[in-house]
Order: sequence, then C-alpha cells, then structure tokens
Amino acid sequence: MATDFRIKEELGQLTDRLVDSYLEHRSINYLGHCPLPNVADVVSIVSDVKELLFPGYRRRQHLHMGNVTYFVGDMIDSLHDRLTQQIARAVRYGSDTQHSDCCETEKLKDFEMEGQRQTVRFLESLPELRRLLATDVQAAFDGDPAASGLDEIIFCYPGLEAISSYRIAHQLFRQGVPLIPRMISEDAHKLTGIDIHPGAKIGPSFFIDHGTGVVIGATCEIGSRVKIYQGVTLGALSFAKDEDGNLVRGSKRHPTIDDDVVIYANATVLGGETTVGANCVVGASVSLTRTIPPYTVVTIEKPQLRFRDLQPKPEAG
Amino acid sequence: MATDFRIKEELGQLTDRLVDSYLEHRSINYLGHCPLPNVADVVSIVSDVKELLFPGYRRRQHLHMGNVTYFVGDMIDSLHDRLTQQIARAVRYGSDTQHSDCCETEKLKDFEMEGQRQTVRFLESLPELRRLLATDVQAAFDGDPAASGLDEIIFCYPGLEAISSYRIAHQLFRQGVPLIPRMISEDAHKLTGIDIHPGAKIGPSFFIDHGTGVVIGATCEIGSRVKIYQGVTLGALSFAKDEDGNLVRGSKRHPTIDDDVVIYANATVLGGETTVGANCVVGASVSLTRTIPPYTVVTIEKPQLRFRDLQPKPEAG
Amino acid sequence: MATDFRIKEELGQLTDRLVDSYLEHRSINYLGHCPLPNVADVVSIVSDVKELLFPGYRRRQHLHMGNVTYFVGDMIDSLHDRLTQQIARAVRYGSDTQHSDCCETEKLKDFEMEGQRQTVRFLESLPELRRLLATDVQAAFDGDPAASGLDEIIFCYPGLEAISSYRIAHQLFRQGVPLIPRMISEDAHKLTGIDIHPGAKIGPSFFIDHGTGVVIGATCEIGSRVKIYQGVTLGALSFAKDEDGNLVRGSKRHPTIDDDVVIYANATVLGGETTVGANCVVGASVSLTRTIPPYTVVTIEKPQLRFRDLQPKPEAG
Amino acid sequence: MATDFRIKEELGQLTDRLVDSYLEHRSINYLGHCPLPNVADVVSIVSDVKELLFPGYRRRQHLHMGNVTYFVGDMIDSLHDRLTQQIARAVRYGSDTQHSDCCETEKLKDFEMEGQRQTVRFLESLPELRRLLATDVQAAFDGDPAASGLDEIIFCYPGLEAISSYRIAHQLFRQGVPLIPRMISEDAHKLTGIDIHPGAKIGPSFFIDHGTGVVIGATCEIGSRVKIYQGVTLGALSFAKDEDGNLVRGSKRHPTIDDDVVIYANATVLGGETTVGANCVVGASVSLTRTIPPYTVVTIEKPQLRFRDLQPKPEAG
Amino acid sequence: MATDFRIKEELGQLTDRLVDSYLEHRSINYLGHCPLPNVADVVSIVSDVKELLFPGYRRRQHLHMGNVTYFVGDMIDSLHDRLTQQIARAVRYGSDTQHSDCCETEKLKDFEMEGQRQTVRFLESLPELRRLLATDVQAAFDGDPAASGLDEIIFCYPGLEAISSYRIAHQLFRQGVPLIPRMISEDAHKLTGIDIHPGAKIGPSFFIDHGTGVVIGATCEIGSRVKIYQGVTLGALSFAKDEDGNLVRGSKRHPTIDDDVVIYANATVLGGETTVGANCVVGASVSLTRTIPPYTVVTIEKPQLRFRDLQPKPEAG
Amino acid sequence: MATDFRIKEELGQLTDRLVDSYLEHRSINYLGHCPLPNVADVVSIVSDVKELLFPGYRRRQHLHMGNVTYFVGDMIDSLHDRLTQQIARAVRYGSDTQHSDCCETEKLKDFEMEGQRQTVRFLESLPELRRLLATDVQAAFDGDPAASGLDEIIFCYPGLEAISSYRIAHQLFRQGVPLIPRMISEDAHKLTGIDIHPGAKIGPSFFIDHGTGVVIGATCEIGSRVKIYQGVTLGALSFAKDEDGNLVRGSKRHPTIDDDVVIYANATVLGGETTVGANCVVGASVSLTRTIPPYTVVTIEKPQLRFRDLQPKPEAG
Repeated sequence: MATDFRIKEELGQLTDRLVDSYLEHRSINYLGHCPLPNVADVVSIVSDVKELLFPGYRRRQHLHMGNVTYFVGDMIDSLHDRLTQQIARAVRYGSDTQHSDCCETEKLKDFEMEGQRQTVRFLESLPELRRLLATDVQAAFDGDPAASGLDEIIFCYPGLEAISSYRIAHQLFRQGVPLIPRMISEDAHKLTGIDIHPGAKIGPSFFIDHGTGVVIGATCEIGSRVKIYQGVTLGALSFAKDEDGNLVRGSKRHPTIDDDVVIYANATVLGGETTVGANCVVGASVSLTRTIPPYTVVTIEKPQLRFRDLQPKPEAG
Repeated sequence: MATDFRIKEELGQLTDRLVDSYLEHRSINYLGHCPLPNVADVVSIVSDVKELLFPGYRRRQHLHMGNVTYFVGDMIDSLHDRLTQQIARAVRYGSDTQHSDCCETEKLKDFEMEGQRQTVRFLESLPELRRLLATDVQAAFDGDPAASGLDEIIFCYPGLEAISSYRIAHQLFRQGVPLIPRMISEDAHKLTGIDIHPGAKIGPSFFIDHGTGVVIGATCEIGSRVKIYQGVTLGALSFAKDEDGNLVRGSKRHPTIDDDVVIYANATVLGGETTVGANCVVGASVSLTRTIPPYTVVTIEKPQLRFRDLQPKPEAG
Repeated sequence: MATDFRIKEELGQLTDRLVDSYLEHRSINYLGHCPLPNVADVVSIVSDVKELLFPGYRRRQHLHMGNVTYFVGDMIDSLHDRLTQQIARAVRYGSDTQHSDCCETEKLKDFEMEGQRQTVRFLESLPELRRLLATDVQAAFDGDPAASGLDEIIFCYPGLEAISSYRIAHQLFRQGVPLIPRMISEDAHKLTGIDIHPGAKIGPSFFIDHGTGVVIGATCEIGSRVKIYQGVTLGALSFAKDEDGNLVRGSKRHPTIDDDVVIYANATVLGGETTVGANCVVGASVSLTRTIPPYTVVTIEKPQLRFRDLQPKPEAG
Repeated sequence: MATDFRIKEELGQLTDRLVDSYLEHRSINYLGHCPLPNVADVVSIVSDVKELLFPGYRRRQHLHMGNVTYFVGDMIDSLHDRLTQQIARAVRYGSDTQHSDCCETEKLKDFEMEGQRQTVRFLESLPELRRLLATDVQAAFDGDPAASGLDEIIFCYPGLEAISSYRIAHQLFRQGVPLIPRMISEDAHKLTGIDIHPGAKIGPSFFIDHGTGVVIGATCEIGSRVKIYQGVTLGALSFAKDEDGNLVRGSKRHPTIDDDVVIYANATVLGGETTVGANCVVGASVSLTRTIPPYTVVTIEKPQLRFRDLQPKPEAG
Repeated sequence: MATDFRIKEELGQLTDRLVDSYLEHRSINYLGHCPLPNVADVVSIVSDVKELLFPGYRRRQHLHMGNVTYFVGDMIDSLHDRLTQQIARAVRYGSDTQHSDCCETEKLKDFEMEGQRQTVRFLESLPELRRLLATDVQAAFDGDPAASGLDEIIFCYPGLEAISSYRIAHQLFRQGVPLIPRMISEDAHKLTGIDIHPGAKIGPSFFIDHGTGVVIGATCEIGSRVKIYQGVTLGALSFAKDEDGNLVRGSKRHPTIDDDVVIYANATVLGGETTVGANCVVGASVSLTRTIPPYTVVTIEKPQLRFRDLQPKPEAG
Repeated sequence: MATDFRIKEELGQLTDRLVDSYLEHRSINYLGHCPLPNVADVVSIVSDVKELLFPGYRRRQHLHMGNVTYFVGDMIDSLHDRLTQQIARAVRYGSDTQHSDCCETEKLKDFEMEGQRQTVRFLESLPELRRLLATDVQAAFDGDPAASGLDEIIFCYPGLEAISSYRIAHQLFRQGVPLIPRMISEDAHKLTGIDIHPGAKIGPSFFIDHGTGVVIGATCEIGSRVKIYQGVTLGALSFAKDEDGNLVRGSKRHPTIDDDVVIYANATVLGGETTVGANCVVGASVSLTRTIPPYTVVTIEKPQLRFRDLQPKPEAG
C-alpha cells in the first residue's frame, strides 16, 4: 500500500491529543482500576440463562432426560462464577459512584460475598421464571392466529425474547442489583425494538405482538393476561422537577394496566396516576392520559378521510 | 475471589429444582432425541444464500468472472448439505407436533429424502430470486433521492435486507417447509425492525423506506411497484373464533394492495377483505379498514393544531 | 444421512444457471478485481473508534492513566492502517461508478494517498467528537429521570449509540468520503432502530429517548440542546422530479430544528423549508409541515375518544 | 496490490490440470460420498477424554466434588455422540477398503449401531484407564529426582502424555476399531517425539523419561514397572516377505520386555523372539537382538576414546 | 485481585527500558514499515496446499467428483492471492537485507509482479508434486508391514508429512524464493522431528519410517526408492572457513545417496564428497564418512556386550 | 444417525462409575476450589513475551519506531495482569502441596501480592534477556553455513525457539516460581524436541543445531559460546537414594561444560562431577563420564565397519 510513512510515525501526536481529552472530558472515561460490569459478559450470561429457561431450543441440542441434569448442573456452576463476578462489580460500582479507586481488599471481599449471595438468590428464582414464561408462551399462542405452535413462538417471537429478558432483568432489579438489569433490557431492546424498563412490574400471560416500537416505562404496573401490540407506549406525562430545576427521580410516572386488558397498535397511555381498568380494550392510536374503569372499550373518533381521484382523464378529442 | 465454597458445593440442589421444573412446565422444554432445526444454522445458511444472490458485496471479496463459478459451486454444495439437514429436521417436526420420539431409521430416511428434494427445489429458485431482487434494488434507487447508487442500496438499505430475507423465506414457505421460513423472517425482523410474514405474497419492484416498525401480515397480497414507508401496518382487523372460543387459523385476515400503490409513514390498512386499488396513494397516518378504488388519494383530515406562546414576558417595571 | 448422491453430483447444473444469472442481472453483482469497502471491516473500525471515544466502558477493561496512552497509541496505529484501506477503496469507488476495472498501479497509489490523508483528518477530529459526545451524555442524564448516572447512559442508551455512530459518520461525510458514512449509519440503524442520515447537521447536547422508529433525513439541520422521542420523523414532504421524471437529488428536503426544541413521540416534521423555532415544544403525534416561530408549543387537538361498556350484565331472574 | 488480472482470470486452467491429476493418481485422493474419520475431530475427542482422565488439570478449571458429576456427565454425553460418529465411519471404512461408494441406508445403520456399541465399550473402560494411569504417574515420580510432585508430571511430562494417548489408542485397538487408534498415536508422536504403536501391550507403572526418539513397535509386549529413556527403540529385526516378495503383515516382529526392566538412552532391542528378562538393566546405546535372562545387566564395552590436545603452544622466543 | 496499583501505574518505566533495548540490540528487532513474510500465514498456505495434494483426507470432507472442481478452483484462487503477498514480501526482503525502508511504490510493484509470477509457477507444479507424492505413499506401504493401507499412511505417517512439506518447500527453493522454504521445512520439523533442508534434492518413492531425529542437510542428493529410519543424519563433516575465519556458505557439504539405498536407524553419513552407491544397505548406528560402492552392505562391528548377574543370592543358612 | 436411545439414556451409570474413580485414584485428580496455573494461559503468556523479545517477527507486524512503544506498553500491561494471576496460583500451590482447600482471603491476598512482585521482577529482566538472546542469534549465524541471515534464524531455528523458552523459564526458576518454569520448558520440548530443564545454567552465545533429541539436565552448568548438536544428552549417571530407598532430589547430578566447547551429535556427557574444560571438542557419539581438561579433542575409536557385497553375480552360461 502506498503510505506516507513519515505521517504514520507522527500519529503519536494524535495519540497525545486524544489522551489529553481524557483529562478534559472525564465524565465519559472510565479509567479506574476496579472494572465495571462488562456488557458482553452480561449478554453472554443472559444467553446462557435462556438456555436453562428453554432447554433444547437454542444453542444446545440433543438434550434429553438422560443428560439434561448434567447440562443444567454444569451451566449453573458456570453461571454462578460469572454472574458473581459481574454482580460484585456492579455492587462495588453502586456503592461508590464517584469513580473512587479505593478497592481495598477488605471491601472487595464484601462486594464479592454480596455478589455470590445475589447470584444464588437469582439462580433460585429460575423455576419461578420458567413458570411465568410458560404462561407467556401460551398467551402468545392463544393470541396469534398465525402461530403454528408453541415451538414456533419460543424460536421466533421477538415479543417472547423481550419478555424473557425483562423477567430476568426484573428479578435482578428486585434484588437491588445496580446497572446490570438495564444492560439486559437494552440488549433486548436492540434485538427486538421493544423497550421494557426492568423496573416495570408485569403479571403472567403477557403477550406483545410484533412489538417494534413498544415502550414500557420504569414504574408501570401491568396485571395478568395483558396483550399489547406494536408501537404502544406506556409512558410518562411530564417530569416533575425539584426547586433547583433538577428532575425528580423515583416517583411513579407511568400507568397501571389491570388484568385482561388489550392495547392495540400505537396507542399511548401516559401518567403515573392513570389506570386502565380490568378487561378494558384500548383501540389503536388512542392516547389516554386518565383512568378508565373496568370493562371499557376506548377508541378514537377516527380522523375524517379525504379521497381524491387521480385517474388520468381521457383527453377530449 | 472471595467465595463461600460451601454454598458453591450446594448448587446441586438448585440444579435439581430446575430440572424438576422441566417435568412440570413441559410446554417450554424440548427434551427429545430428534433435534429441531437450529436457528443459528438457519441464519448462517441465509447469510450464505445472500452471498450468492448479491455476489461480491458482502463477506466474500475479490470475486471476478474467472473465479465466481468455483465460489458458487462450492457454496451450492455446502448449502445443499446444510439446508437438507435443517429441512429434514423441520419436516420431521412438522409431521409430528406431539414431541413423540419415534425417530425410526426408516422414517428418518424419508424425511432426509424430502429434505434433499426441497433443498434442490429451493436452490433452483435462486436465479428467479435474483431477477426479483434486481427489480427491488432498482425500485429503491428510483424511490429515494438520498441514494447515491445501486451499490449503496445493496450495502446499506434495511428495506432491501428485509425484502431479501422475505423472498428467501417465502420461497420455502411456498414449498411447504415448516418452521424455517418464520425463523428467517424473524431474524430479518431483529436486524431491521421490519416484520414481513413469510406467507405474504409480494410482487416485484417492492420498496420499503427506513422501515422501522413496518408490519406485513401473513395473508397480505401486494402487487408490483408498491412503495411503503416506516411504521406502516398491513394487519388484521380482529380474529375470528370458532364455537369453542379458539382462534380460527388460516383464513385471509390481511389486506390486498394492488400495483403501483404508495403508502406513507404510519398508515395502517386492516382486514382481509380490504383492497387498496392500483395507483392509490395512502397518506401518512391514515387508517383504512375498507376497500378504496384505483387511482384514489386518501389522506386524513389533519387534527387541528393548537399553538401556545411560551415566550417569557418582560416583567413590568 | 440418506442422500441421493446422483442428485448431489448434478448440482453443477444449478451452479451454471446461477452464474448465468450474474451475466443477466449485472446491477446486483460486483465481480470486479478492485474490492469495495467491506461492511464488516467498517463496523469493526467503528467499534474500535468508540473504544477510543468512551475508554474503559466497552470491550477493553482495566484501563487506567498508567496504560491508557499505550492502548490509545496502539489503537490509533491500527485504525490508521485499516481505515486508510477502506477509505482508499471508497475513494476509488467514488471516482468510478461504472465498475470499470482499470485499477492501474498509478491511480491506486493516488487513492491510497487520499485514503491516508482522509484517515489522518478523521483521527484528528476525535478529541472534538469526544467534546460533543460529552454534551450528549449529559443531556441524556438531564433529560431522563430513569437514568441512574452517566455510566448507565454510556453503557445502555440506544440513543447515545446512534448519536455516536452519527457523529462518526457525519465527520467522514463532511470530509467527502463516499459510501462508508452510510454503512456506519445503517449499522447503527440496525442496532437501535434509529435512522439518522450521516448528512444531517446536529448540534451539541442532543438527546433521543427510547428512539425506536426515529428517522432524521439527510438535509436536516438541528441546533443545540434538542430532545426527541421515539417514533419522531424529520422527513421530506415529497420529492421533486426533473423534467425527465427522475428524482432531483441533493436539494434541501428536510426541516430545520432550532436550539432547545423538544419533539415528543411520533411527531413528524416535514419539508425542507419548515423550521421549528428555538425553544419550541412539538407535542406527541403532531404533524408539522410549516414553520413555527420560537417559543411555541404545538399540540394536536386530541381526537375525540369513544367509550363503550363491556361489562357483562347480570341476567334478569 | 499490483496484480496482472489477466493471469488471475486464467487460473481456471491450472484448476483443470490439478483436477485431472485426481483421475490419474487416484491412490492419494478420497473423493467418495461417505466421509472418513476426521483427524481433527479425533484429536479433539482424545483431548476431551484426557479431561476426564485427569480432571482439573487441563482446560477445565474450577472443578470440585460439587460440580464434577455435571461436568463428567455432560462430557460423556458429548463424547458418546462424537465418538460414535467417528467409529461408525472407521467401521464402514474398515469394511470396504476399495473406496466403493455404496453407503446404502441399511448398511449405514449397522455401522452406526456398531459405532455406538464400540463407543459405550470404550467409555466403560475409562475407570480402568484411570487406574493404570495413576500407576504411571507414580512411576514417573519414583523414577525422576527432578520431579517436584505428581502435579508437575501430569502437567508437563511428555512421557505421560504419550502413555495416556497410547492407553486410549490401545483400548480402541483391542476393540478392533480401524484407523482411529493410529490417528491417536501419531498425534501423540507429533506432540512428544515418542512413537508407541497402539498395538503394543504395556503393563502398569510404565515410565518414559525425556522420551524424544523413543519407538515402540506394534507387536511389543512390555511388563509391569518398566522404565525407558529417550532414544530407545523396541523394533523389528527385518521384515519377512512372502513368496511374491510382499511383506508379511501381522506376525510378532518386536521384542518382549518383562517386569521391572530398565532400558537406558538410545539402546535398541530388536526382534520378535527377543525377550529381556525380568529385572534386567539394558545400558545406554546397547543393541540387543537376542534374549537375556532375568536379573542381567547388559552394558556395552565402551568404544575407546581418543584424546588430542588443542592447546595453542607458546611460541619459542 | 489484590494488586498494588501504584506499581501497576509505573510499568511505563519498564516499557521505556525495553524499548530502549530495541535501539541497542537491533539485530533481533524488525521495526521496518515493509512487512516480512508471516510464519502463521505461510503455515496456513501450506496446510491449504496439502488439502489440494491429498483431497478428501484432511480438513475438508464430503468432496466428490461433482464438487471437487469448485473446491479446487476456489482454493487455487485464494492461494494465488495469499501466496503472492507472502512471496512478494520475501522477494523484497531478499533484495535488501539491510532492513532499509525504501519501499517505494515503483519497486513494490515489481516485487508484487514477481510474487505473482512465482506463485503461478508454484501452482503449476502441483500436479507434478502429486505424481511424486503418490510414489512416496506407495513406498511407505511397501516398506512398513504395520501399515494397514494407503489411507492410514496419508492420515498418520509423520514421514509423509515431512516429505510433503519438503516437496512443497523444495519447489519454492528451486524457484529462488527466499526465506519461505525454510519456514515451511521448520514447521514440518516441529511437527514431526524430521529436519529436511529445502535445498536437498530427493528422488521419488522416498520413505522415512518413524523419523524422529532425522536430519537431511541442504546439499544432500538422494536418488529414487531410498528408505531411511529414525535418527539418521545426512550431514556435514566440518565447515570450511575462508581466510578471514568466516564460514564458507554454499559449497556441497552433505552426502549423495544413490537409488535403492536403505539406511537404518541412527546411522550417520557425512561429507559432501561421500557417496553411498546404488542398492547399498547402511546398518544401524554406522557412521560413514567416505564413499562406498554400489551393492554394499555396511554394518558396524557391534561393541562387545558385558553381562552381569543381578540375581539376589539366597543367603546361606 | 441410527442410535439406540435407551443406551444413551443410561450413560449416567457410566458417569457415576467414572466419578467414583475420582474418589479412588485421587492422586491424578485436582478437585479443589483454588485453581492451579493453567498450561494454555502460560503458553499464551510465553508467546506474548517472545513478541516483546523479538518485536516485528512473529504475530504482530507493521511495528515501527513510531508505534512500538504503544505496542510494548500495552503488552506489558496485559502481561502484568495475566502473569500475576498465574504466578499467584503457582505460589499458592507451592505453599501447600497437599491440595488443602483453605484459600482464605487473607492468604490469597499475600499470594497475589507475591505474584505481582515476581511478575514485575520478571518483566524487569526482559532487556537483559534480549541482550543474551542477541548473542544466541549471532552464535547461530556464526555456526551454521546454511543460515542466510539473522532473520532466518529468528523465524525458523528450533534451537533458538528452545533457548528463548529456556531463558524465560530459567529467569522464573531463579526467582523461585514453582511449576510454571517447567510448563514453559515442556512446551518448548513439544515444539522442538529439545528438552532443557529450566534449572540449568547456560551462558551467552549458546547454539543448538537441528536439536531434536537434545536433553540438558536440571543441574547442568554451561559456559559461554558453547555449541551442541542434535541428540546430545547432558545427563545424570545414576540417582542416589537415601536410606529409605527414595531418590535424593536436589543434588548436582549433571555435568559442567566450560566456555567455547563444541559437542557433536549424539554425544553424551553424564554425571554431576564431570567437567568438560574450556575449548574442548567432544566428537559425535562420544560418551563421557569423567572430566577432561581444557583444549582437549575427544573422539571415539570408531567401531570397525564390515562390508559385504550384495551385487547379483552373473550366472555362468
């Protein structure tokens, strides 16, 4: 390749200028000795957890009752070590957001013990997660006439992918693990276009069809047997600020959806005090900002359509 | 790492509880000896098929007329073996949805023969797929003033990515291959945010711009030279149920779009009996649930806008 | 596997038919000796550039002030070589869109020199990109009450991912590098569902929340401290055609958004002459096609909602 | 790169000439549809078997009594499938050395059943192989003052590596599996420079020190507690030929070494009727071609050494 | 991990001292812009060439007459590019051993053209290499009663591995390619313990049994149907020095072995003027430094053996 | 594949039997929680150290004075972490050979601190290792007329490979690091057939030609400018045992070789009190077990050769 080697030997100046910028805009560096959780490791852990939740469908094949215990036991053991490491990092991070570097051995030990404790608690929740996910898979089959069977849903449905990641992330969120739940939900968001905050509370038999563009906010509460379609937003109305003009974090900003509700495509339900009562149906493109009682169907007065004829006229002779 | 090794040695109990849950919620395990099709293998096959459809653009470089036959012949041979295996699994699966485990040698042989037959038929369709895709690429260039050339479209356009996957999946769908077409279309959905069911019928010169959020249902029929924008849904109105309350699967639930139609962003066309006639234009955010005749422009009566002035007033002195 | 080997030996005929189709539909082959830029290589380069822009957060861990210079210097050196190669290919491509094959040594040398020149110019811009991105990260924190800290934003927010890719792509676009900027922005589009054309001009402190479905056109101009939500389209009204019926490429087709504007979910602003004045707020689902003055709040007259009671009536006794 | 593209486009002629040579020198092609065992797969299987024989020392770390059963069960399951496949191929190969291509489904089934039967028999021998190898490890420690412990031997000693591979290969040889035992022993030969034919019979507590250049022939019989050093050959005297001048294959051509023998570096013991009696010591560089009784020390009359003085003489003044 | 981070931050001083040593002991750095041939790339090229020489036996399986042309054509094309690059580097290196850095575009072009010319010449020799190797395989079968068939030899025999590498390396050596032939032969030396200098001339039907420790010097000439055993050295007597005390390089220093000779284990034949006549047999451990006429058997007067009885005497009662 | 699934489901019994054998032959398990050093990691560390010792020759190319500091600094940093981990494990292991499992946090911290201390000491020795290796490379060039230049030696000579590994291992041995030095030397032994114990002391300008079969014992002392050929053993005479019949470990058992000695192929020098004086030449196949004074040439009285004529006699007419 025709390269000017003199220029190449001067790249050191570029390097120095870039490193200088690390001193200047420190907010977007992490140059500390104690590592943060690693997104790629977390993603790989979640992928392995899903192998356990839906055994036989994904990477590992040829599982049967004669070997599945070995597979599970080996995976649990591996997950124990890897998840303990990531949670210990997250716990350390959460205990000290000013990037201080005092990873003293004594404290590190505490973080690691906490990481192990949280990991075991998470692993213990797997049978319960399976119980929930089995209801979600059934709900998808019951709700979509295009589904040829449960297996197709487990293999292919982005809604199930997003809900699985959410249920994993939510379990860790409930345990108070910092940072990692959000890494998990954003990974699912990238894959599916469905953005469920790990803080949301969602009951069993939840079904999201198609799903692209769905947003479910951090303080949503969703009951059992709820069904939502692509483009639905369960969001905040506006953000409260404190007297210094900073956002108030932590209050309930997103709606409550009771049992057996259906929300059609592109509808939005906004506000922390808004409740959609049980058995309601929210029509496509409806925008709700206040509570509706149970057994209500809400639709919009469709905008008037205008029709214009494009047909080329025969020219007069 | 500071680990409590006693806890680690007791993970076996966790393993047992999780394996127990496989006996309880069997609907989301697959613990049979005869493997299902594998999503990762199918995705890799599709990636290789696209190498053949658009040679020289993707992974393999330095192809020229002197070596392209070797490349193609080698790839065809490899695809023959891998696709035969996956289709044979899908065919076996389709013949027996109750997870029975009777993979007797005699029947397996039949499935494999069928897998090979279907594979050869698919590979024979590749020149026709190329003919169709050439029209799609040209349609994208003709329809997007931001495109600098055909190559940019082949390299970058998510719409083309989704349509390529769709055309591959649809060919297998037409051949009656179970499960695999949907795996292919959901992989494209993940990559592009465009969800085209492999059962849809779509004519040549099809263009989807931007594409995120597009949903095209299983029983849609789309003519030639149709152009649609991001967020468009071609969906079902509501699902018929039989007398037992179960969904009726298989009826035409999605609309028909005739030749030369343009559908702008976020419009929805719903219902199996809805037809958008040839040369129609459906405006942004229009929601259509009934047939419109050819050469019609449909737009919505835009909702009234309200304007409020935020300008801080000068305080009176 | 039960295979009919005679069929397998005849796959050569399939190969020949497919190769024949390369002569027929030439527009979607690239069978030239001079390679095009490679999407996978470009994606890997962008990933490494992001390692430099946000050191310590992504793949590479254990960076600290004692070793970061080595890491950066080594990466800069590697990026120099790889980016020079890709840009040289793009420059050659841009100089000759008819796939001619005359890669004479003399001209190739010029393309490579130009590739190096452009690469060094790009690498020199990295500190400035960091300065801009630091403002974007802060804007995300200031705008989202669910954010627990800056680190969470850098790790997880798809909006930041898309903006980072955009700022990298835009720098190369400004330098006049063909093809590669679009490869970069479409990679981000796939990951995030956010489609920002590299030609758009966007000021500092830009925040996109959730983001799925956002489209920002090639000739948009966006000021400082702008905030937009999922589903927002900043698009074109309609495409001008020249007297031969071909699209006019290159004119300003997309709107201008002034400083401190907020645009809520699913709003659309269309047209090259449309300007949203500074400090405006555009409400959810608003569709704007004309200019509004500064300090204006625009909302839609919400469509009338209809409520219907589903409650099963107690049967009369 | 400066390439003459015309030359490149003519490589097809080279290809054709090379393919023609496959028709001419058929003895060194294998162009049949039924695959042979694959060396890389066999090597990987052996590596995994060694993980089971010496758990915790090699690739897999962090094994403990709480998880080792999972690890072993999972590995056994995986080995079952992979080894069955390789042995089935070897059995098919052994049944038909003329490269005929009749892999009819019915026969294939028989080969596969035989592969599984042989695999299970091999796996059942693993505890016995461990018992033998434990004696070999102890013998190495007892015989080498440089060894710091048993662990060092398991980690580092090429002699143990070769003996482990031999014991695995010999088990398969005894079962009558074709081709694969030799693949295993030659892999060990490459790694260690120690060439033990899988047909040799070797008792427990066998130690080879340093080992490079050791050759142990196919029909050797070696007792318990034998110790040999680098460069030792236990070989054939000369090869019998039949009346057509072809080698007689299968007769005992290599020596018998009784219990508790030591053979020092570079000694050779040749001939199928040669026996080294129990408790003998064979000195370095001795060449034995006839039987010696028990409790004999054999050394060579060392060749006379000649000494010459090189010292530069002081010049006379 | 308990790390003293202050120490870690001071590793920069270590780095500086090591880099300083690159200025001091320059003879063992290569810090020039024009890359040398790369051993790993050369090894991978040789591995692929062996796939072509022995198709169907090694990595690539499922080759048959219906697909082998595609495989070969694709591989030839790939080898053309990779080998051209490596040979061009070697040619540049050979033209300029003082590490000068003047890789001017004009000269580079010449090196690349020469690389391509040499590559094509090498690829053209492949059918002839196959012809020779077929004789070597047959010779191994005819010479070793332990061989169960030709396939076992191709799969397993280190002698054949070494000879194959030698024949490849020798072809490039004859073409005058610098450095690369030796890389190839040393790779084979590592794998097999057989050290054949690429400069040696070796006729057809060559067989090396066991092979560990064989050394064949650069100026050896070996006829047809020669057979040698492990530990044989065909070496130099002593090295001539010129009047300045430097070694004279390039003269014939190694022996000539005529047709149909057998040389048994650990024999040494030394000296450039030594010839072993046709049909000779050189016995094990013979050390020859002068010419012997055809049809001669040379053996050593075996050193006298001494026997001593170790038998513990029964103690007198 | 035709598999008997009932057999497959019973593999659990096999697993149990194998795990039982771990309780029985404990000497060849390592089932403890505190991991041992890992051979693959150690090998990868050594490979990286060689990148630093011979920059530009091996994996990493395109190094020049403008970027080499970054490369070295980055590698040193990475080596610091990885080597600290491995040495800490080795130190823990060395402190406790009974496999006890008490890895208490407090002690672990000490081991890690010691690991770091040893690592820094090792890294500090790299410039001195380079100084020594530069003399070895020059000695190879001065000693082998077949060498075309220093670069060929660095690329290809197994002797240099073995000496480099030895010098690295010896430095760690001198520091008292357990286990790891032997892992390093046995890795080199596998690659080169040259077995140098890391405990040996070897002066500068050391050259081993060809090398296969060379053995250099743990307590050898070798001066400057020594040159040895393939098959040379510098070994022990016999092993002293203590009164319990156990080997005495640690005494000087191997010879001393003074400066400027040459030892030709297959010679053996044995015994801890044997010294070969400066400037001696030891002839091929000589076996020395006692001291010889400086400036002595020792050769063997060559065994008498016997010649026999094989020539077929013309039959009398």
